[in-house]
Amino acid sequence: MDKGLTPDAVASLLETASAYVDIAKLGWGTACVTPTLARKLDVYRGFGVPVCCGGTLAEIAITQGRLDDYRRWLTGHRFTHVEISDGTIDLPRERKLEHIELLARDFVVLSEVGSKVAGAVVDPGAWRQEISEELAAGSWKVITEARESGTAGLFGTGGEVRSDVIEEVVEGLPIDRLLFEAPQKAQQAWFIRRFGPDVNLGNIEPGELIPLETLRLGLRSDTLLDLLPTTP
Amino acid sequence: MDKGLTPDAVASLLETASAYVDIAKLGWGTACVTPTLARKLDVYRGFGVPVCCGGTLAEIAITQGRLDDYRRWLTGHRFTHVEISDGTIDLPRERKLEHIELLARDFVVLSEVGSKVAGAVVDPGAWRQEISEELAAGSWKVITEARESGTAGLFGTGGEVRSDVIEEVVEGLPIDRLLFEAPQKAQQAWFIRRFGPDVNLGNIEPGELIPLETLRLGLRSDTLLDLLPTTP
Amino acid sequence: MDKGLTPDAVASLLETASAYVDIAKLGWGTACVTPTLARKLDVYRGFGVPVCCGGTLAEIAITQGRLDDYRRWLTGHRFTHVEISDGTIDLPRERKLEHIELLARDFVVLSEVGSKVAGAVVDPGAWRQEISEELAAGSWKVITEARESGTAGLFGTGGEVRSDVIEEVVEGLPIDRLLFEAPQKAQQAWFIRRFGPDVNLGNIEPGELIPLETLRLGLRSDTLLDLLPTTP
Repeated sequence: MDKGLTPDAVASLLETASAYVDIAKLGWGTACVTPTLARKLDVYRGFGVPVCCGGTLAEIAITQGRLDDYRRWLTGHRFTHVEISDGTIDLPRERKLEHIELLARDFVVLSEVGSKVAGAVVDPGAWRQEISEELAAGSWKVITEARESGTAGLFGTGGEVRSDVIEEVVEGLPIDRLLFEAPQKAQQAWFIRRFGPDVNLGNIEPGELIPLETLRLGLRSDTLLDLLPTTP
Repeated sequence: MDKGLTPDAVASLLETASAYVDIAKLGWGTACVTPTLARKLDVYRGFGVPVCCGGTLAEIAITQGRLDDYRRWLTGHRFTHVEISDGTIDLPRERKLEHIELLARDFVVLSEVGSKVAGAVVDPGAWRQEISEELAAGSWKVITEARESGTAGLFGTGGEVRSDVIEEVVEGLPIDRLLFEAPQKAQQAWFIRRFGPDVNLGNIEPGELIPLETLRLGLRSDTLLDLLPTTP
Repeated sequence: MDKGLTPDAVASLLETASAYVDIAKLGWGTACVTPTLARKLDVYRGFGVPVCCGGTLAEIAITQGRLDDYRRWLTGHRFTHVEISDGTIDLPRERKLEHIELLARDFVVLSEVGSKVAGAVVDPGAWRQEISEELAAGSWKVITEARESGTAGLFGTGGEVRSDVIEEVVEGLPIDRLLFEAPQKAQQAWFIRRFGPDVNLGNIEPGELIPLETLRLGLRSDTLLDLLPTTP
């Protein structure tokens, strides 16, 4: 999660941690107010890390009837990935699926399910159905919304893991096609214990890339006893 | 809010975000324990961003009867702005107003109202009166105290916005002469929705400059539906 | 507390704040997943700041019966300090003391007491006894566990200071041989007020080095009235 990093900060970060980043996300509309955007994108490209703008930008473009302009802007900046979501605006299902299909012709599409409203009721069966449909429509991965704070969707307003909800949502779905937003350490540890070290996790702060990798490998207390072999 | 940034970090930050910073504040007494202060001030000056020390330094100088020494120190470092507050010490009203008048001869003065004590009772009428008097005495802007954490003054101990208190405090005052300390996102969004995108906000962490600008422009979920025009 | 800083970030940080750092700790197993480790260690050495890996690495080595391998790895990287703890694994007292004795032949040893489990019951007399034994076995300083978050051991699950527990733990012990993990500002202020400005504090985030120094000197509201002389 890059919510306004400078080009220098990205260069410094990736020199140490690029092996642990699959995709950089420029949170919500931050790309539009980053005067050094072009140079920052060059840095990401130099390290082979694909970059994706937050779904909020697509929601704005849809609201303004300017999705074509948005596609051109993305192409102009040589973005290879795009995210589409409906966490803030009302977007009919069929329209969202059409947008996914259309965008998938030119981009790797990440789509997001779930509301940004903290405490919103989650209907696990409906989420599962939406994820299936979006994968079928062309999404490469489907993201489960939790906000930058990790206090919505699959988590309670205090960040606690709603494990029963998660189990129902993922039932029968290919785990490697899901990307769970999980900014808090306890959330990350839960997903790693439940789905293994390779589970896709999102909304990771830059300074948490190295700590998260230690969780995945059992090099931190929270997962040590679960993951560490006891014999050499 | 610069609470100890290195000169390199300031240079990197401002290259990307200087357009979104009106004043940099070196929090409380951090300037005194920053060995690289002179070089950091040069960096700020190079980007045209004025710098101000926290009011705590003035409170210390007043407590020690050394306000003249403090003025000389500020002049020696070519500070153009100064903050005066009474959030920690007891300072009679008439003395504070005298200090504002005196400092305003040589500096752009920001004065601050309110206690640093979390949960302290706020008397809105008294705050409004104090703000009026300090503006009349020569303050360029008056800051409403909330601490680095955003848990005092106009906010409850959990950071919640005391909207009724705020409405009473600001009644009849020129909003552009007020600077609201509002470090938390929900607080920032509230002020932007209530007073518009140009409202003066303070105690913004360096990494939140870009996110705050997206809130001001409706490029983040929290203010998107309030600010975004729906037609191109 | 360095939980994955880049070499550039360390260089920038220490240029400003090296005078306020006695030891850098590479949190838990982060050293193992930092590809730029060797270069980072060079930067620390250049500023004369000794570096220590987190006790979790020793716990892993002990669990795997590979403490000798760990010692060789430390020596290979020219670490001069080592931490040993038992916050996650079960380690009989006599074994821990043996390890301290053995490691103290080649390294400056920091040992840690206390569990990483939040809310775990602390027996102050037992802690005091353990600290005494570990100092006698060769520990240079004994660390009181609080986790990166400051929500275990001497603190409640909300970070609140258990002052009665602390008083019992430290009774009769040499304060300068104790190192209190205290990542939160209110915790730091408490220790400074209680044990003076030179008290050893740990788990300090990089961005909190300058703020902590202001607390030690009475240059921030939280300790200003306690520490500041009122006459010049």
